[in-house]
Amino acid sequence: MIYFECDYQEGCAPEILEQLQATNMEQTAGYGLDPHCEHARRLITEACGLEEHAERTWRGDQTSGTVHFLVGGTQTNTVVINSLLRPHQGVLCADSGHVNVHETGAIEHCGHKVLALPTADGKLTALQVQEAILGHLYDPNIEHTVQPGMVYLSFPTETGLLYSNAELQAISAICRQYGLPLYIDGARAGYGLASPEADTELKDIAAAADIFYIGGTKQGALFGEALVIVNPALRKDFRYLIKQGGGMLAKGRLLGIQFETLFEDGLYMRLSEHAVSEALRIRKALEEKGYELPWKSATNQQFAVMENKKLEEIGKEFVLSEVSRPDAEHTLVRICTSWATRKEHTDMLIAAL
Amino acid sequence: MIYFECDYQEGCAPEILEQLQATNMEQTAGYGLDPHCEHARRLITEACGLEEHAERTWRGDQTSGTVHFLVGGTQTNTVVINSLLRPHQGVLCADSGHVNVHETGAIEHCGHKVLALPTADGKLTALQVQEAILGHLYDPNIEHTVQPGMVYLSFPTETGLLYSNAELQAISAICRQYGLPLYIDGARAGYGLASPEADTELKDIAAAADIFYIGGTKQGALFGEALVIVNPALRKDFRYLIKQGGGMLAKGRLLGIQFETLFEDGLYMRLSEHAVSEALRIRKALEEKGYELPWKSATNQQFAVMENKKLEEIGKEFVLSEVSRPDAEHTLVRICTSWATRKEHTDMLIAAL
Amino acid sequence: MIYFECDYQEGCAPEILEQLQATNMEQTAGYGLDPHCEHARRLITEACGLEEHAERTWRGDQTSGTVHFLVGGTQTNTVVINSLLRPHQGVLCADSGHVNVHETGAIEHCGHKVLALPTADGKLTALQVQEAILGHLYDPNIEHTVQPGMVYLSFPTETGLLYSNAELQAISAICRQYGLPLYIDGARAGYGLASPEADTELKDIAAAADIFYIGGTKQGALFGEALVIVNPALRKDFRYLIKQGGGMLAKGRLLGIQFETLFEDGLYMRLSEHAVSEALRIRKALEEKGYELPWKSATNQQFAVMENKKLEEIGKEFVLSEVSRPDAEHTLVRICTSWATRKEHTDMLIAAL
Amino acid sequence: MIYFECDYQEGCAPEILEQLQATNMEQTAGYGLDPHCEHARRLITEACGLEEHAERTWRGDQTSGTVHFLVGGTQTNTVVINSLLRPHQGVLCADSGHVNVHETGAIEHCGHKVLALPTADGKLTALQVQEAILGHLYDPNIEHTVQPGMVYLSFPTETGLLYSNAELQAISAICRQYGLPLYIDGARAGYGLASPEADTELKDIAAAADIFYIGGTKQGALFGEALVIVNPALRKDFRYLIKQGGGMLAKGRLLGIQFETLFEDGLYMRLSEHAVSEALRIRKALEEKGYELPWKSATNQQFAVMENKKLEEIGKEFVLSEVSRPDAEHTLVRICTSWATRKEHTDMLIAAL
Repeated sequence: MIYFECDYQEGCAPEILEQLQATNMEQTAGYGLDPHCEHARRLITEACGLEEHAERTWRGDQTSGTVHFLVGGTQTNTVVINSLLRPHQGVLCADSGHVNVHETGAIEHCGHKVLALPTADGKLTALQVQEAILGHLYDPNIEHTVQPGMVYLSFPTETGLLYSNAELQAISAICRQYGLPLYIDGARAGYGLASPEADTELKDIAAAADIFYIGGTKQGALFGEALVIVNPALRKDFRYLIKQGGGMLAKGRLLGIQFETLFEDGLYMRLSEHAVSEALRIRKALEEKGYELPWKSATNQQFAVMENKKLEEIGKEFVLSEVSRPDAEHTLVRICTSWATRKEHTDMLIAAL
Repeated sequence: MIYFECDYQEGCAPEILEQLQATNMEQTAGYGLDPHCEHARRLITEACGLEEHAERTWRGDQTSGTVHFLVGGTQTNTVVINSLLRPHQGVLCADSGHVNVHETGAIEHCGHKVLALPTADGKLTALQVQEAILGHLYDPNIEHTVQPGMVYLSFPTETGLLYSNAELQAISAICRQYGLPLYIDGARAGYGLASPEADTELKDIAAAADIFYIGGTKQGALFGEALVIVNPALRKDFRYLIKQGGGMLAKGRLLGIQFETLFEDGLYMRLSEHAVSEALRIRKALEEKGYELPWKSATNQQFAVMENKKLEEIGKEFVLSEVSRPDAEHTLVRICTSWATRKEHTDMLIAAL
Repeated sequence: MIYFECDYQEGCAPEILEQLQATNMEQTAGYGLDPHCEHARRLITEACGLEEHAERTWRGDQTSGTVHFLVGGTQTNTVVINSLLRPHQGVLCADSGHVNVHETGAIEHCGHKVLALPTADGKLTALQVQEAILGHLYDPNIEHTVQPGMVYLSFPTETGLLYSNAELQAISAICRQYGLPLYIDGARAGYGLASPEADTELKDIAAAADIFYIGGTKQGALFGEALVIVNPALRKDFRYLIKQGGGMLAKGRLLGIQFETLFEDGLYMRLSEHAVSEALRIRKALEEKGYELPWKSATNQQFAVMENKKLEEIGKEFVLSEVSRPDAEHTLVRICTSWATRKEHTDMLIAAL
Repeated sequence: MIYFECDYQEGCAPEILEQLQATNMEQTAGYGLDPHCEHARRLITEACGLEEHAERTWRGDQTSGTVHFLVGGTQTNTVVINSLLRPHQGVLCADSGHVNVHETGAIEHCGHKVLALPTADGKLTALQVQEAILGHLYDPNIEHTVQPGMVYLSFPTETGLLYSNAELQAISAICRQYGLPLYIDGARAGYGLASPEADTELKDIAAAADIFYIGGTKQGALFGEALVIVNPALRKDFRYLIKQGGGMLAKGRLLGIQFETLFEDGLYMRLSEHAVSEALRIRKALEEKGYELPWKSATNQQFAVMENKKLEEIGKEFVLSEVSRPDAEHTLVRICTSWATRKEHTDMLIAAL
């Protein structure tokens, strides 16, 4: 079987395995306080146009750094949201947002309501955010309802779509006007930034967001996400939160080594570009063959409506991801490429469509 | 000003104040372990057609009783839901449900997602509950999503509507089929049971629900809710949960005395009937004068769409509750009667409509 | 049976019942936004030498007031601690502190470790607090351990003891030096302030604490605690937290009416003085009869070691509270007086000792 | 510098890196539902003398398997304790237990009090557990205090000590008598089982515990812990809890591959034996040179009291871990070996002692 099911079905970019091999018997301090993490943090802050604020938790200077590494996305989302909100606050997000639907209630488990806003395509708008904030402020039962305390969006979205830079900055402006931090989930940030339709760079994301993460797990690492805390007010004591949330890897250097490798010479973007280019080949084929595409994704996730009969046939050779059943005869499927997608597999899939 | 804003703007039924006066200098044990609470529990279990299971928490027999008294509704809802769910479970309820919109995220604060189902009128249907349960069971990402762990509904609803006994028992049957306990919020249970359109008695609610409460706060008591745990499997250690949730009143007898008074000779229903009868007079007037009534409520809450100009005029003399603004010229208002509504006030309001 | 078991076994001061009667059919807004609460808040801020900061939550001005009323102590402690701490922080308190031992883990339930410090008599010292803070700051595993985020103490303590004003201010100074808010639990504040051995007034407590509460439940009210937020930085959005914690009474005026009555003409202190004076008569008798008193309490709680045989005999007529069993032959008992203690009951108990 | 600071300062056993390399481009399902995890689960259940209960969460059969893989220890402890306890329950453990002191309050963060019992050496006794349980059952304020809901112990302890099989089974018997599940934290299980002083095998641990984990992170894996749920009643819905707790690795096979390698041909025990044998060489040297050893550890962690001057000298070449300062002149240090300790480094350290 050939998998186009998701972007985490292989191991990692060979360059990363090489580095893990090369550094294997080095002795380092644990918990992210090693030279590899330090180096990786520097590379990432540079890529974001920020200045690295170093870790110093010792002796009462409990401000923490700009960049932290965590193992996975649910963990990162939970730790961030848990750190930013007070108990009576919730997080505004699209109804299709990962924190709303696919984390088994991890946000609620740490005490916060997800304030889901309806969207047709998974994208929030600045207006929608503003209306939600004002709707709360003008609610006569104001303190009987959850206060919007931050905004969460994903770039690209769960539907594979991009925010333009103008859209991002508009949402950011509303957030700043009302004092709500903006958190951007970049689990697939590379697949967004590498899209030919993107007009954003990491620096734009860093300019819009108060805090965001750059995904590794789906982008060529074995695992790992790099969290960037742009707004200094949100950095305080962050390492405590990571440890409490089960996100502080004992052998933290494993995260440092992976992100070092991804960010040292452009590997991160090269891997991303490959995935997007394969995805766009698939999209072109889907369109030519007349499939209905609910969202015009220019990133590594493509969505198409298939007749069940056709899907069954394709399913003999390929594993796709079933999203929903629009009607009894059709299935909405997701086709995912990744850094690891082999061109010949794409060719075979295109032929089978 | 004359208030029709809510059903908790006066003190309490005079009979209750008398009893508080009469018992004031009695010495009793605290925390609900006094003779008044015992008596009130017996009266309530009888009214529900249940057998009182007495409190015994001493020496390791940690099963707890059938009836518990708590101070308020948010507290009761939180303690119940917190007790019934495991960490990965959520509570199914109507999107307009009190636990979803008007408790400042208390349910999420204790770790659980409210799984809100869309309704036009605030009423759940058995089919809707079944679809939500099956939708989860058939979700390919099943354990990445919150598991429905119980069902919450209010009788009457936030919109003043009633479930027929058939509707209640149908929801109950679905709950039992899938092993989810059914919890009924009866903050205004009396105003429901006393409605001429109701075909339910307390015994029917006790037959449908695994756990429910009979409201006191909005029904003539100073404060207090009587929680009835029909399903013995849900009783274990319940007093711990109440204490932890801040719901165990030191002078617990205050709750016992109030519910004794309400349930000894039918006072609870007499007070309820008065409120409903006044509300129906208002509804008749609203209908005759051509107001749009979004829901045909036969309980103590009436909803009507008013021109803003008219509302402003009425607002000089009467306090109503503004629910929403359907358009720039109109307001949806709630008019509430209660055990304390004076007939002459109702007459004056009707004249002013 | 005559009860000296606790300070909440009767109803309330007759003056309060009278006021409840007199105001019963008034119509007011709910949730503490009524004139009685407003008046009571003003009386309390005056008594504390503070300026009342009024409630205004409407239209985005989400600072909240200086004084809030909640129903009970566990609830108040939970809401305060939950509001003040970030997720990785804990509350320093004496190992015998109410939040550590008698609230069924309510503090942990809302996510925070109680950092219990060992004490022989239930009193914290400034040095002990400082050592705990420094111990954390110098811990090499600093962010792997819970950060002390506030200090909790009770005045008087669970053992009936008082902090001198110098002791209070010393603890307060350490708290301010390290930026930890100080929270004082005054469930029995009156019984402390009214003691002939106290050198503190409400103003001293307000000067030392960032936030504290003045107990009503054990001090002559039916129920209720008045929370005073001295430090303006801790006031923001507090009403949300109260609502979420189930502490916002629908008929909030019941709390306002009670505290109005207690604080209008010195009733609160008169009731307290009576209880303390009866307790000191009992202490004198205990000492004269040679009982061992582990703590020299000058407040309404007296502790004495009794032979089990003697206790059994006394127990035929009097209900005391058993605290622990120092050995097989003896029991440590607590004898509690209150605003409601009848002088002739005290006489009878003294005779029986 | 040569590190004897902890057991996670290198990468992983070379055999594991080889397997990661060999499997890198395989395509598998995510989240632990791949053949490597399946194989590893079978190997582990065999090693424990249990029968593998397979994962099936699909279509409503929500019982889950015997073995689950999680990324790290704090996460595993949190997910387990969170799953086993009801909200009013706490976990009994030694005061030095990892969950009590070194997880930034992760247990409290998910709502539960750690009921720490005093120990001199980090070991619980069956008697102590029984007394804690009975102390609660006989507490007159029973439901005002946290109910002991499970027992946690670590094998070996944080102090490097072992429980004999008799001690383990005695604690287990008490747990079963009172219905509390026993959870054993085996972060360093191998270093315990491989000790010449151990009289336990994995099967004994599986016989005593209701649930336990076999550590990978400190035992030669890059990361990862294998959780074994012996008691079927505790398995239900466990995958939901793992996902919610941020512990479900997208590329779950990385855990499967590592544990496959560790358990296929005895590698796990070989690596452990090496570490213990190096540690015992160090202990012998410490004893011969007259250091005070507070605990007679026969596992990979050795503890010794050193003069500060001596420590400073050693510190020029070696990194040890400072535990505490018994007095102004001395430091209690921990010396850790691991699967990766080089014999020549041990020789050098011994020479320097």
